[in-house]
Amino acid sequence: MPIINHTVMQNPLRNIFISAVAVYSLLFSSLSFSACNMPNDLPTGDLGIIIERMDGSVLIINNSTLSVLCRVEGLGDLSHASVVFSRNARYAFVFGRDGGLTKIDLLKGKISKRILQSGNSIGGAISQDGQYIAVSNYEPGGVNVFAVDDLSLIAKIPATYGQSTQTSKTVGLVDAPGNQFVYSLYDGNEIWQVKMAPPFDKNEFTIPSANIKKYHNVGKAPYDGLISANGRYYIAGLFGEDGLSLLDLWHPEKGTTKILSHYGKGQKKLPVYKMPHLEGWAIAGNHAFLPAVGLHEVLVVDTNTWKEVSRIKVHSQPVFAMASPDDRQIWVNFAFPDNNTLQVIDSETFKIIKQFQPGKGILHMEFTPRSEHVWVSVRDNDEIIVYDTQTLKEVKRIAAKKPSGIFFTSRAHRIGL
Amino acid sequence: MPIINHTVMQNPLRNIFISAVAVYSLLFSSLSFSACNMPNDLPTGDLGIIIERMDGSVLIINNSTLSVLCRVEGLGDLSHASVVFSRNARYAFVFGRDGGLTKIDLLKGKISKRILQSGNSIGGAISQDGQYIAVSNYEPGGVNVFAVDDLSLIAKIPATYGQSTQTSKTVGLVDAPGNQFVYSLYDGNEIWQVKMAPPFDKNEFTIPSANIKKYHNVGKAPYDGLISANGRYYIAGLFGEDGLSLLDLWHPEKGTTKILSHYGKGQKKLPVYKMPHLEGWAIAGNHAFLPAVGLHEVLVVDTNTWKEVSRIKVHSQPVFAMASPDDRQIWVNFAFPDNNTLQVIDSETFKIIKQFQPGKGILHMEFTPRSEHVWVSVRDNDEIIVYDTQTLKEVKRIAAKKPSGIFFTSRAHRIGL
Repeated sequence: MPIINHTVMQNPLRNIFISAVAVYSLLFSSLSFSACNMPNDLPTGDLGIIIERMDGSVLIINNSTLSVLCRVEGLGDLSHASVVFSRNARYAFVFGRDGGLTKIDLLKGKISKRILQSGNSIGGAISQDGQYIAVSNYEPGGVNVFAVDDLSLIAKIPATYGQSTQTSKTVGLVDAPGNQFVYSLYDGNEIWQVKMAPPFDKNEFTIPSANIKKYHNVGKAPYDGLISANGRYYIAGLFGEDGLSLLDLWHPEKGTTKILSHYGKGQKKLPVYKMPHLEGWAIAGNHAFLPAVGLHEVLVVDTNTWKEVSRIKVHSQPVFAMASPDDRQIWVNFAFPDNNTLQVIDSETFKIIKQFQPGKGILHMEFTPRSEHVWVSVRDNDEIIVYDTQTLKEVKRIAAKKPSGIFFTSRAHRIGL
Repeated sequence: MPIINHTVMQNPLRNIFISAVAVYSLLFSSLSFSACNMPNDLPTGDLGIIIERMDGSVLIINNSTLSVLCRVEGLGDLSHASVVFSRNARYAFVFGRDGGLTKIDLLKGKISKRILQSGNSIGGAISQDGQYIAVSNYEPGGVNVFAVDDLSLIAKIPATYGQSTQTSKTVGLVDAPGNQFVYSLYDGNEIWQVKMAPPFDKNEFTIPSANIKKYHNVGKAPYDGLISANGRYYIAGLFGEDGLSLLDLWHPEKGTTKILSHYGKGQKKLPVYKMPHLEGWAIAGNHAFLPAVGLHEVLVVDTNTWKEVSRIKVHSQPVFAMASPDDRQIWVNFAFPDNNTLQVIDSETFKIIKQFQPGKGILHMEFTPRSEHVWVSVRDNDEIIVYDTQTLKEVKRIAAKKPSGIFFTSRAHRIGL
């Protein structure tokens, strides 16, 4: 159940208001997903979560039957939300924009715990051992770490930089092998690598400084990050300059390297309508595909040399460039006002093989883990469209209220997701 | 419960026998895992199956709690068994040496269906869409396909070759994107690619020939196969000659290519005690690690050129060379009489960084999907040893009766596993 402090209304209208709410709730719930009677003996391998960004609700879905099992409400501000899963694929941890961290029990179809961990968060990660949830914060900045079981606080890691009085927004938070979290300091131009090694100080909620490795001057304003599927390379996109910052976690002694510097050199930068996300990337052969900031291009990089190989002209400013698990396709969506378009790139020829315009507000894509389907959220249509990746034809449309992020439980078994 | 046809004993000893069996069963079950009271609300993301090869039984385990949940008996001859999982991670399909195909319900801790599909099988696969189980047969050869739900027969695909009267053993069966199965004909020196596209002929149980693509003369006696994690490259190991046969499924028009030909040239071949398996392979940077046949070597191949880069001297004849999901380590076990040894290779330096000799009969290894642990079966110790991949220290020992294969449900979400 949502944890909300209701202001008690001390006037005669109160009862009428409550009755109206009750009637509305009854009507609404009968129209949607009445009691969330989850089936008994529900396996968790093919479940997922869809964020309904306007209503603070999520849908629990099944990606085998292409159906909605349940709507769970009361998750606060989900206008920029992301999800990670417990290692048993039973619990979804939803990071909300308002600093809310909500643990959803997929088997019960309800919230099992919800906390407001800060004023403004931007994403999170779960540790390799499945014991810790880290949340990245804009305001007041820094990273907080919680126990998976009860969301009790384990540690607060302030992102102080410079003269150690300023604190930075933290972004691009991922898990990495060795039970580590890696993230970037947007204001501090740093990348931090934190090892989760118990026991922790239960009074101070601190991480020993020996377990935090900091990389300074990684580039101007890292705004998001990704980690390669094997957990070796952490890459932060830069907003303050062209290029990305690369950290080889197998060789921390080498520090960070700037890649794709000056990719926009000589070009007139466009106003950036929405920052691209780096979460989905493709490696096909030796190529990584990355959305450029402020350009109508997807950049292709050789992952051996980390040099630019090509740049693919696309419809508009890319937001996500996501690879299918079979590496054959890169699906790209775009920033406002071109967020009604979806393009599919062939990873081998770099050609655009398909373009869709199913509706406005194409916000996210999620592939089934063996690559046969991709689920696409179309916000203004209030629906999810499922496509077959072989035929590039629609398979099904599924109703959802202003859907944004889509997250399948198979992420539980992937490094960095 | 096991499905066994008891011959009714029509003599006075019958009741005594039955009582003895009852007492034994009671004793035995109280010593092992009494009634398999599986917990309610059991998520399936961190479960797994361990084959107990001598007893025709399997253990259902949990790789978060490092514990055994249940023993399921009555699976027939498991002396060479493998497992795939349904896409919801609820069902395990066990392929036994006697042609048995057993569907186990992990939530209930029992067999939900068991058939004897042929006289002698060697492994199987589940289709990308999760609807079909294919089984590869030695005797009488060929591949049979069954419906996932009830194990009803969908198709029989005889492996006829040459003058179309001879049938071949089929090996190296894997699933591939596009809802395909790919496998090799040991006697026929062929690789077949079969697309599962319904509707199927319910009277004839055939696959239209247009849906079967055959590659001839791929090399002498392909004995096992693997597919890369993205489903692009199928590689068959050759027993009749040095080398492996490579098929690029993105370019079937190019046919197969021989790679690593003559890798044992000029060397005196050792007698082959056990054929190596190709299932686990590593790509770290651009290197694949493959066990050599009849040599004390692991071959390192560049996955761009498919040329040999190096060969690593190991303790004995390798059986499995398996990569950790973080690509940092290759764990290698060996054929009899050196199957008491386990070596760990650093994937970057190609150096052996650790050697274990925990007991005889080290038969299989399975990594947790985020790479923190590896489970190793030690047959003659009647135990599984769990190692931490960071510290290379033992984490736990778990009792199991003559364990061989170990399979975690995260395989449900991987192409080719």
